[in-house]
Formats: sequence, structure tokens, C-alpha cells
Amino acid sequence: MIYVIGIGSGEKDSMTFGAWAALEKCDVILGYRKYVELIRKYFPEKIFREYSMREEIKRCEYALKISRENPQQIIGLISSGDSGIYGMAGLILELADANGDSQIEIKIIAGVSASSICASILGAPLMNDYVVLSLSDLLTGWEIIERRIRAACLGDFVICVFNPVSKSPKRRENFRRACEIMLEYKTPDTPCGFVRNGGRYGESCEIMTLSEIADCESELDMFCTLIIGNSQSRIINGKFVTRRGYDM
Amino acid sequence: MIYVIGIGSGEKDSMTFGAWAALEKCDVILGYRKYVELIRKYFPEKIFREYSMREEIKRCEYALKISRENPQQIIGLISSGDSGIYGMAGLILELADANGDSQIEIKIIAGVSASSICASILGAPLMNDYVVLSLSDLLTGWEIIERRIRAACLGDFVICVFNPVSKSPKRRENFRRACEIMLEYKTPDTPCGFVRNGGRYGESCEIMTLSEIADCESELDMFCTLIIGNSQSRIINGKFVTRRGYDM
Repeated sequence: MIYVIGIGSGEKDSMTFGAWAALEKCDVILGYRKYVELIRKYFPEKIFREYSMREEIKRCEYALKISRENPQQIIGLISSGDSGIYGMAGLILELADANGDSQIEIKIIAGVSASSICASILGAPLMNDYVVLSLSDLLTGWEIIERRIRAACLGDFVICVFNPVSKSPKRRENFRRACEIMLEYKTPDTPCGFVRNGGRYGESCEIMTLSEIADCESELDMFCTLIIGNSQSRIINGKFVTRRGYDM
Repeated sequence: MIYVIGIGSGEKDSMTFGAWAALEKCDVILGYRKYVELIRKYFPEKIFREYSMREEIKRCEYALKISRENPQQIIGLISSGDSGIYGMAGLILELADANGDSQIEIKIIAGVSASSICASILGAPLMNDYVVLSLSDLLTGWEIIERRIRAACLGDFVICVFNPVSKSPKRRENFRRACEIMLEYKTPDTPCGFVRNGGRYGESCEIMTLSEIADCESELDMFCTLIIGNSQSRIINGKFVTRRGYDM
């Protein structure tokens, strides 16, 4: 039995009771190093296995291997935010099928997404139709990402950006390019905001305009989530809010 | 003090510890009738006020009035899913500002969105870039909704549809029109799925193709969330999965 568990920010406050109950049942819990560190304090008696970034397939293969060899074992595969959004849920289902492990029970436990946590800290920017988009070009080609940025702007969607930058200089260039494209469609004063380490130790956030955020790429890292408003977004009493359209 | 609380499905399993702690602190909890009914059993000693659909402004005005008259009172404003996604978070911030109530502290507590709950039940359809779109034309004109459906298709986004239909025959017509538009861009065998009452009593779900879902509008109601795949979506071992692009 494999639980694929979204742990929200990694602090108990943003975990669900269902996620907690699943973690309590696990014999071994696998995850990216940083997120294992966050939850280890809540379950000091558990066995954890820490992995590096880009070892997603390795984690899943290990989970399937233990389940295959010892069907009694309960394995937890954790993702920050929601395990079904750029998390481990899809990959484990794909690999279980590819490996002929379809007898292994896999239960996906949804969590609070980074987009929701980020939005709640900034105000209420996701109150109208929105797009969730990753700027990571590891698994999706840049031409597709660029097409999606343009489509999101054409639809006047609020845009929530995951993985805005990484350590690679190429990705920082991509971020600047993404901002340039958005500025072709959206006004320079479109409200934007980003949150780093939302809902956990080290949280910080900033609200600014689209033209300003294009210049502050050096302030962003891979623990930031970014939201760019649509034509109905406003800064209201210091909060970033997208109007839903109520008559007031 | 006003807490704006996302309660997930309404069952404790999909609530966060933070949401629960906030509900425990409240002197009075306001919400749509159906969602009040779901959480009343957990807090039998609390005062609840039930509202009808479309009484969102009335709820917020009442919350602000109590806070203004009695700043000691702690008020909870609940939304199903995440309070920041088509929930009460934006409206209360807008109204507090419009009414000159900016001294009232308003804390948004993110929850597990219906899109995440729905995805976890169907499999892992939101593993790649996606759009969240409401088909309700009460607050957004149909021409804008139609433009957004086209943009979402142009970007090959997975599409998560809130409020796919309502009791109004006009809205059922809109749903059929939305499917027709998607069929202009996506293949008829694009995987789709919907979940009714996700994560709570009465949960049901179905996985099918885009051409099939276009014909089953009579099976949908306002408690359904719908997900339409992109070009990378597959049915894998009975689950609806969007491939993220890992080499396997």
C-alpha cells in the first residue's frame, strides 16, 4: 500500500487530518530532503528516506519495490503542497502501470496547494479564473511554455507560476523572457506578488507590479510561488485581490 | 477578527489543522447552508448562521457589522474547498475596504481546493499546467468565458471546470456550447472525468472521453467538478493521469 501524501507547507497547520492519519500509518516515508526535514519532527519514531531533487523516479521505484516484496508494508510518498500538482501522484501511477505493479494499492491524498497558500498570504488573487504554470523547462519544452504564457494572457487569466527560477542562468533568462511576453499583453501596473516558503519558517512575501517583478528576478528562488493578476486585479488595503465581479 | 476558512470537502479528513483551530476559536460561524450542515456536527456548541446561495454579500456585511460593533467577537466565514478560489476571501476584503472597515483584522486560511480533491479521486490529471475555470455566467459574461475556453485549448492546458451547470436551462446550454468549443481543439477521445460531492457523503465519479461528457450534461449538477485532459492525458490502469514528461 502506497500513500501519496500532499503535506501543504510542511507545517502541521496546513496539513489535513487525512494526511496526518496516513503519515501515522506509514512504515517508511520517502521524500525530497527538505520536506522530510519539515515533517520528521512530528513523527520522530518513523523511518524516513531522503532524496535529492530530480530523484523522483528513484523514489517511486523504491516505493514499488518495497510494496512488491512485502505487501504488508505501508509506504508514504510525500510532496509539498498537493501531491497531484507537479507532485508524485502522476509518476507513481505511471510507473506502477509500466512495471506491471497494478496490484499495488495506491491512494492519493490531496493537500493544500502552494498556489492556495501563496494566495492566502497575498490576499485573494485567485478569485477568478486562473492558470497554474511551471516555468521549469526540464520536462516541458520552452516553446510550449511560451505558447502557454501567451494563451494565459489572451484569456485574461490570473497566472500562478511555479518554479519561476532555478540555479541555472538559462532559467533566469527564461523568467525575464516570460515577463517580457506578459508585458506584451498585460499593463505594466498589473498587480503581482510572490511568496517564499509560504506557511513555514522563513516565510516572506512581496506585492508589486508586473514591470517591477520583471526586474527582481534575483530575489526569486525555487521556493517562491508567483502570482500575476488579470485585468480585474487590484491592490486593496495592501492586499492583492482579483475582483470576482460582484456589484457593490 | 474575521477568519475566512476553507473547509475542503467539509469532512474532517480534508480539513487542515489550521482550519480546525480557527473554527474552534470562532464565536459565530457563517456559511452556505449545505456547508454549515457538514461541519455543525464537529462543533455542536457553536452558533452558526446559514445562508442561501447568492447571499455572499449579505454574509460578509453581517460579519463586518458584528466585528465593527463588537471587536472582541471572532467570526468564521466558511467556504468549501479553498476560501480563496471562488470563495469568500476576495469579497470580504473588497467590502471591508469599501465600507471603511480596514481596521478589522481578516485572516484567510487556505483549504484543499475542490480541484485537488477531484483530481485525487480521478487519478492525477493536474500533473501538468492547468486552467481553473468557472462556467457560471452570473458574475462573468459568457463571451469572456468562451474566450477563456478557447485560450485554455490553444495553450493545451488541462482544464478544471467549476460550476459546470446549474438549475437554469441557459447554463445547461452553456455547458453544451463549452464542450463544442473544446471539441474544436481537442480530440474526441481526450480523457475527462467528473466528481460529485468529492471527499464527502454521496461521493461519485466517472471517467470518460470528451465526446462522451458532452452528451451527459444531465448527469451533472452544481456539486460536480469536471476535469478535461490535455494532449498528454491518458487513462492508465483505470485512472485519469496527465503525463508530466518523465523519460521512462
